[in-house]
Amino acid sequence: MGLLFFLFLATTISDGSPAKETIPGDKVLLGHGSGPGVDRAPGLSCLSWRLAVETNNIINWNTVPGQCEDYVGYYMMGQQYRKDSAMVTNQALLHAQSLTTVGRDGKDVWVFDVDETSLSNLPYYATQGFGADPYDATSFNKWVLEGKAPALPESLKLYQKLLSLGIKVVFLTGRPEDQRNVTSSNLRQVGYHTWEKLILKATSYSGETAVAYKSSERGKLVKSGYRIVGNIGDQWSDILGTNPGNRTFKLPDPMYYIG
Amino acid sequence: MGLLFFLFLATTISDGSPAKETIPGDKVLLGHGSGPGVDRAPGLSCLSWRLAVETNNIINWNTVPGQCEDYVGYYMMGQQYRKDSAMVTNQALLHAQSLTTVGRDGKDVWVFDVDETSLSNLPYYATQGFGADPYDATSFNKWVLEGKAPALPESLKLYQKLLSLGIKVVFLTGRPEDQRNVTSSNLRQVGYHTWEKLILKATSYSGETAVAYKSSERGKLVKSGYRIVGNIGDQWSDILGTNPGNRTFKLPDPMYYIG
Repeated sequence: MGLLFFLFLATTISDGSPAKETIPGDKVLLGHGSGPGVDRAPGLSCLSWRLAVETNNIINWNTVPGQCEDYVGYYMMGQQYRKDSAMVTNQALLHAQSLTTVGRDGKDVWVFDVDETSLSNLPYYATQGFGADPYDATSFNKWVLEGKAPALPESLKLYQKLLSLGIKVVFLTGRPEDQRNVTSSNLRQVGYHTWEKLILKATSYSGETAVAYKSSERGKLVKSGYRIVGNIGDQWSDILGTNPGNRTFKLPDPMYYIG
Repeated sequence: MGLLFFLFLATTISDGSPAKETIPGDKVLLGHGSGPGVDRAPGLSCLSWRLAVETNNIINWNTVPGQCEDYVGYYMMGQQYRKDSAMVTNQALLHAQSLTTVGRDGKDVWVFDVDETSLSNLPYYATQGFGADPYDATSFNKWVLEGKAPALPESLKLYQKLLSLGIKVVFLTGRPEDQRNVTSSNLRQVGYHTWEKLILKATSYSGETAVAYKSSERGKLVKSGYRIVGNIGDQWSDILGTNPGNRTFKLPDPMYYIG
């Protein structure tokens, strides 16, 4: 499905009507998904698939099941993804506001993941079947190196409010160290103008899981005296493991899975 | 909203049509929900609220927001709750089937929560606004003591298949020890005919959180030589904490929260 078609859809359906979550795509379909289990399911509700993905019940999946491509595209380009994201970042802000002693000694940090959390790769994924096409490292890295990813609007708003509370921001991303410059300039360009640290994945972590890498880096933060008062990401691997943070927040992402 | 109305709805809407998730209830409503944060939200999408609840982004909530009563009732009485549950238990079964050495020495156990996992209190909650009314211990305990809760069909099927794989079942519930007899007979009556242990909450745990109580009891299981190969519940407090199990599975429950 082409990007243009979705831009058209996004234009025509963003009218706040209540029925948009289920049209099209949420029908029980016989057919083949991808990843453990899904391809063996006798019928597949794309709504159930997405909920199971978001709740970490379906893990280690490779691609969006083929019959859910339209559903996921519709969800991502429409208002429901925006509303779902805002619900999460609103809860995150309420948590931050409830921390009465926060920001006093400059040691309170909030960890932000980058892709599908601080920055959105939706323009790229719209050309990749919204995750229904197999991951293509070459074209994805080309997209990243353009440095043109927009901000996830809800996360940018959260970022601004956290800074005003005196909380410092640490970006912790699975992007490799050699994408530091483009990541840094992309972040600044869309409004993330300051941060305490921008941690990218060093080659020494190659072969390690995201959970292991991120846990290790969060451990270093804690060891050097920071308090992780919050942690937000679109993958469970952003918020599971050790030193996850005082509270964790899971943004929606039905397009891909990182273990 | 009365039970009869919902029985009517459930009869008329279980036709597999794709649009049922969003009618009625998923509109952005100005108004007041309940629990931290939600009542301060300027607009509330019931779909977003439910997703945020299921992903543990909204915690410590007391009741379903008033404007989501119809939405939650519609969801619970319709096919989507069934499909969402089946998606989770199918994944659980696939996990069990992937454990190649399972069941050989009689030490592999699967932990099942009871309420909204093994047994369903939906007939009761249908009289309580599907969680929109404040929790009423008196009427809930009266319902429990009737011993008439039906099985959650998807969990019963999982239970049967796990037994056939040689996995033993441990029920671990927040129900108090003095409800042992009625719980035991209710479980048997709906098809859970055997178990390794049925663990109810001893008075010594009073004042402790569900996470602390369940972690402690799972710890005892592990200490006595059991391997927890899986753990399924409708609350995050069933599956967080220590010794959660080899893998955990979160069933849907938008009706109430136990921390």
